[in-house]
Amino acid sequence: MKVLTVITHARENSLTFKVSERFVQGLKDAGHETEILDLYRSGFSPVLWEEDEPEWSADRQQYSPEVEREMERMQRNDALAFVFPLWWWSMPAMLKGYIDRVWNWGFAYGPSKLDHHKVLWLSLAGAPVERFEKRHYDEMMTRYFNVGLADYCGIPNSQFELLYETINEKPGYMEKWLNRAYNLGLNYDQK
Amino acid sequence: MKVLTVITHARENSLTFKVSERFVQGLKDAGHETEILDLYRSGFSPVLWEEDEPEWSADRQQYSPEVEREMERMQRNDALAFVFPLWWWSMPAMLKGYIDRVWNWGFAYGPSKLDHHKVLWLSLAGAPVERFEKRHYDEMMTRYFNVGLADYCGIPNSQFELLYETINEKPGYMEKWLNRAYNLGLNYDQK
Repeated sequence: MKVLTVITHARENSLTFKVSERFVQGLKDAGHETEILDLYRSGFSPVLWEEDEPEWSADRQQYSPEVEREMERMQRNDALAFVFPLWWWSMPAMLKGYIDRVWNWGFAYGPSKLDHHKVLWLSLAGAPVERFEKRHYDEMMTRYFNVGLADYCGIPNSQFELLYETINEKPGYMEKWLNRAYNLGLNYDQK
Repeated sequence: MKVLTVITHARENSLTFKVSERFVQGLKDAGHETEILDLYRSGFSPVLWEEDEPEWSADRQQYSPEVEREMERMQRNDALAFVFPLWWWSMPAMLKGYIDRVWNWGFAYGPSKLDHHKVLWLSLAGAPVERFEKRHYDEMMTRYFNVGLADYCGIPNSQFELLYETINEKPGYMEKWLNRAYNLGLNYDQK
């Protein structure tokens, strides 16, 4: 498969990038083709202006050149992966704006939907897992990404994976998540 | 009370702005002081870069001038209101980035939290209310805004109000929401 990996982090020396690197290596070792989009350094703006507002009466409208370019990038790939830090139990604004603008009416939902086989949401959280379970954030996030985004846009296979307590500096902790990321790439086409 | 109203929309002639205007008029008629922040035209960038990453070891760090300015704006108000279109069952990236950057460590959560009396989330959705209830998005959104954001930051009174089916052009429909917005302002300090 051709898999587009969208990475969202301000720093290239971040754990998010290290995790992305291992994930992509896993994809390659499994024989997949990969394309990487580094949102922060791509020049993409997350702010939706009038030119990218949906026209509900149109089947397929012409969006801004920046958005059309990203739609083409999505279309030349069979599957998707997003690697990002979890901020406020959700995506950083940069990635939210990518969804706001690129997953637009007549392309990702409505009269025409996405035909990607799978999407993986691979998110890094500083907090320990208990904090998510205690207030049912885990259920809230799973519903958001798997139902509210993927299912709504016609992607049948959506997987939300949380690497938690990523600020833990115990020996071996980091390696655990890097191995997890590698294996998520290696076994990408298995659920 | 002094109430900061943060408006998020690309167009000043949008329904979001009309609703904001009625809400603010209600606030004024109830005797509140108001300050308005028009995020799209304020020059604010929603993208968090390294200078605004939290330093977990610091009690209160120095953030970027843009963020410090917005923190001061929040601090000179007693209560908050956000008016925004619902995109992907959540905030537009512009507003998400305001939360990402301004509701930061040591200011809004962690060693120091917000001391605002109340926050109102007033959101406009094109879809009918049944679509939200069917997939439990209403419960997901209420948890997100009232627990994940407000309660986490120490604001005791958080209200999430959804004006739905806002693309409905039936006579009287728009007036219903404008009246609702006015009354939310007029009765802002009553639950």
